[in-house]
Amino acid sequence: MTKRTGHLRLGAFLYPAGHHIAAWRHPEAQADAGVNFRHYVRLAQAAEAAKFDLLFLADGAGTRGDNVDFLSRTAHSYVAQFEPITLLSALAAVTDHVGLVATASTSFNEPYHIARKFASLDHISGGRAGWNLVTSSNEHEAKNFNRDSHFDHAERYERAIEFAEVVGGLWDSWEDDAFLRDKAQGRFFDPARRHVLNHKGRFFQVRGPLNVARAPQGHPVVVQAGSSEAGKELATRTAEVIFTAQQTLDDAVAFYADVKGRLARYGRHPDDLKIMPGVFPIVGRSESEAKEKFEQLQALVDPKVGLALVSGLTGGFDLSGYPLDGPIPELPETNASKSRQVLTLELARRENLTIRQLYLRVAGARGHWQLVGTPAQIVDELEAWFVNGGADGFNVMPPLLPAGLDDFIELVIPELRRRGLFRSEYEGRTLRENLGLKRPANRHAAHGAAAHAVA
Amino acid sequence: MTKRTGHLRLGAFLYPAGHHIAAWRHPEAQADAGVNFRHYVRLAQAAEAAKFDLLFLADGAGTRGDNVDFLSRTAHSYVAQFEPITLLSALAAVTDHVGLVATASTSFNEPYHIARKFASLDHISGGRAGWNLVTSSNEHEAKNFNRDSHFDHAERYERAIEFAEVVGGLWDSWEDDAFLRDKAQGRFFDPARRHVLNHKGRFFQVRGPLNVARAPQGHPVVVQAGSSEAGKELATRTAEVIFTAQQTLDDAVAFYADVKGRLARYGRHPDDLKIMPGVFPIVGRSESEAKEKFEQLQALVDPKVGLALVSGLTGGFDLSGYPLDGPIPELPETNASKSRQVLTLELARRENLTIRQLYLRVAGARGHWQLVGTPAQIVDELEAWFVNGGADGFNVMPPLLPAGLDDFIELVIPELRRRGLFRSEYEGRTLRENLGLKRPANRHAAHGAAAHAVA
Repeated sequence: MTKRTGHLRLGAFLYPAGHHIAAWRHPEAQADAGVNFRHYVRLAQAAEAAKFDLLFLADGAGTRGDNVDFLSRTAHSYVAQFEPITLLSALAAVTDHVGLVATASTSFNEPYHIARKFASLDHISGGRAGWNLVTSSNEHEAKNFNRDSHFDHAERYERAIEFAEVVGGLWDSWEDDAFLRDKAQGRFFDPARRHVLNHKGRFFQVRGPLNVARAPQGHPVVVQAGSSEAGKELATRTAEVIFTAQQTLDDAVAFYADVKGRLARYGRHPDDLKIMPGVFPIVGRSESEAKEKFEQLQALVDPKVGLALVSGLTGGFDLSGYPLDGPIPELPETNASKSRQVLTLELARRENLTIRQLYLRVAGARGHWQLVGTPAQIVDELEAWFVNGGADGFNVMPPLLPAGLDDFIELVIPELRRRGLFRSEYEGRTLRENLGLKRPANRHAAHGAAAHAVA
Repeated sequence: MTKRTGHLRLGAFLYPAGHHIAAWRHPEAQADAGVNFRHYVRLAQAAEAAKFDLLFLADGAGTRGDNVDFLSRTAHSYVAQFEPITLLSALAAVTDHVGLVATASTSFNEPYHIARKFASLDHISGGRAGWNLVTSSNEHEAKNFNRDSHFDHAERYERAIEFAEVVGGLWDSWEDDAFLRDKAQGRFFDPARRHVLNHKGRFFQVRGPLNVARAPQGHPVVVQAGSSEAGKELATRTAEVIFTAQQTLDDAVAFYADVKGRLARYGRHPDDLKIMPGVFPIVGRSESEAKEKFEQLQALVDPKVGLALVSGLTGGFDLSGYPLDGPIPELPETNASKSRQVLTLELARRENLTIRQLYLRVAGARGHWQLVGTPAQIVDELEAWFVNGGADGFNVMPPLLPAGLDDFIELVIPELRRRGLFRSEYEGRTLRENLGLKRPANRHAAHGAAAHAVA
């Protein structure tokens, strides 16, 4: 494989006090981060000053899990924090360049609302909106939406495919030049450039048109995070960015080749989909400083929290009856997120970890790639993944916020720039331009390419 | 009745280019207002500098009506504009005091999403969010949400009552002091101060808890706009502000007394609900200047638009077969918004209007109270309604934006202040404080009053 040159892409994955499970207990932590708007303004403006491509917000429309003792000991699990679309809309008003990617589930939303809110955010932000399409792995969300249990794994992906089709169709309700705003003739729009969707499918019946003008980006950027077989297939059809959890270069390269190789089937080019694995970096000016920072966070993990966290990542199986310093037992397959479960168990078996060692391993990055070291050590790894076909960029998951983001900006980004791996100025005006993604033509437009990302 | 003293409340009801149906055609109009974020920032900051209580945004999750020729000649009817919750979230970041009231329908939303988004906006804005609860009178919204037709009038109000109960319950998921954020003990929240809703009703099954901390205002302010019998009953149970269309002082006084008189039945005090009729003011330095401004807008109304508008306000009946300069024919009762239909027909019969005269009368305020005159003339009317028990304040609907809002601020507000009718500084930090509404106690709190606005 030819070694790649050029710039990699960076996302700043913001999670209230930081991604480490015990981050909120850290002396420097903003413990009220989940409802502290000033905290997010500071993070967003710092990421933008450093030229990050995008801010990324995860989501759950319901607390993850039902173990109240566990929940009460964490600030994770979507216990109580801002809703992402309202938060990113507010951050749009205090930033000018950085992309704004919010997660929203296809299982517990209506496509008209999702198409509309993201198109509106794209207008508000001048072309910086992105939708991270998830199907939700959290059983408890269903109970907030008139259901006793979640859709099964296959059904929720079928629903997601149709949901994305409807959203893409609604985003093309209006051609780019539909709005004449001709005051003299009294014609606000050209009826010939307005398109009624009239979708009738298995899950949705949506007439349209969307009542928002076509987005500055054509379509907001569609991000996808599933890494299961169904998730990869959905991403290949609908996504323009994949956020994925990969632990090793070999796995990352295999995943990258697999997904990029599927694109031709849908008439898409490998450049039409950017792959950005998550990375959880703990950076120090020396290796020992980095390790100390990490140990300081690890020491704050309550064993009750660690145990419950591993249960959650392995499909809800209760491990509290097993010895903490013994091996992970064989577990039955569940309806929870398959890829997350497989990754967690593979990690434990590959490294022969005890339950305690495993919970300390996943406490931080929760299954994502963890790097602890100096700027040079961290950039060596990022560069290796980038140049060897494992990643187009990375979604950075700071252990502690704002300190972990500040460290990355102060120490890692200059090293990336020194090696010619990261921009010093934004290339474009929109998220799509900065990511190097084409603006999709409207499917109804008389002239222009038929290609569009959301079929 | 004792004449009232004190301050009245003012809302700035923002509609893209202005409330007059032909506003977008005016030479000064911002014709792209529906997708121009800078336009809204300017309006919001002007309203805040003038000490308005709140910004108010209407909504429809779908274009209103299906007459494409009509639609293409207007910028009204929710053809293509920002979605209100995203827009107000963005405006929250560039304002500090003004309230932010967005409309959202109980017919085509899920209560968990609505509770969450408004609670999130309340945190982002530091206690300035309000929810205008509507049941939707627009048949076309249904078709964007898996239905062939709307719920019937009675069913949508039954649904709205249950929806508001669920939202109120979710807003009390967490007691105000539930979040300990005790780093040393590792307790993020107190499990005893977290409350699972477990709602199972006719329309909704929602477990909870909400995954947003209790809002700074306790509950975001609940606004309601229905004026039918079912609408008044819903408002009496659930609302803290009523936005209503009244045409005469007598009608306004009767409506005010009727609604305030119903509150005791739900253990509520008359001050717990503020009544703010809509007013469409065209203000000039002289009476003739005001009339000229109005005529300039009226001259821009295309007869095709006027005719279709009257059809829409009278329940969708097609009037195009009747002579423009003849009387309004007898119309059958429909499933559309009853109060709007009754008001429109009463206006036509009271003043013996032709179809053309009627469309010119409703083209501006679309059934709301229209005042054309000098600042003194306009304030005479507002004062009469306020001191005689017809209104606690007004929702101002500028004919043209930004010019009509600027006129109101420059000419009318100083006259209101001269008469001691309007504030010069905000009294409180939250919308609720500025409106003079109590902060609701959490229904689960061990100490504190049991009173809360959303039962």
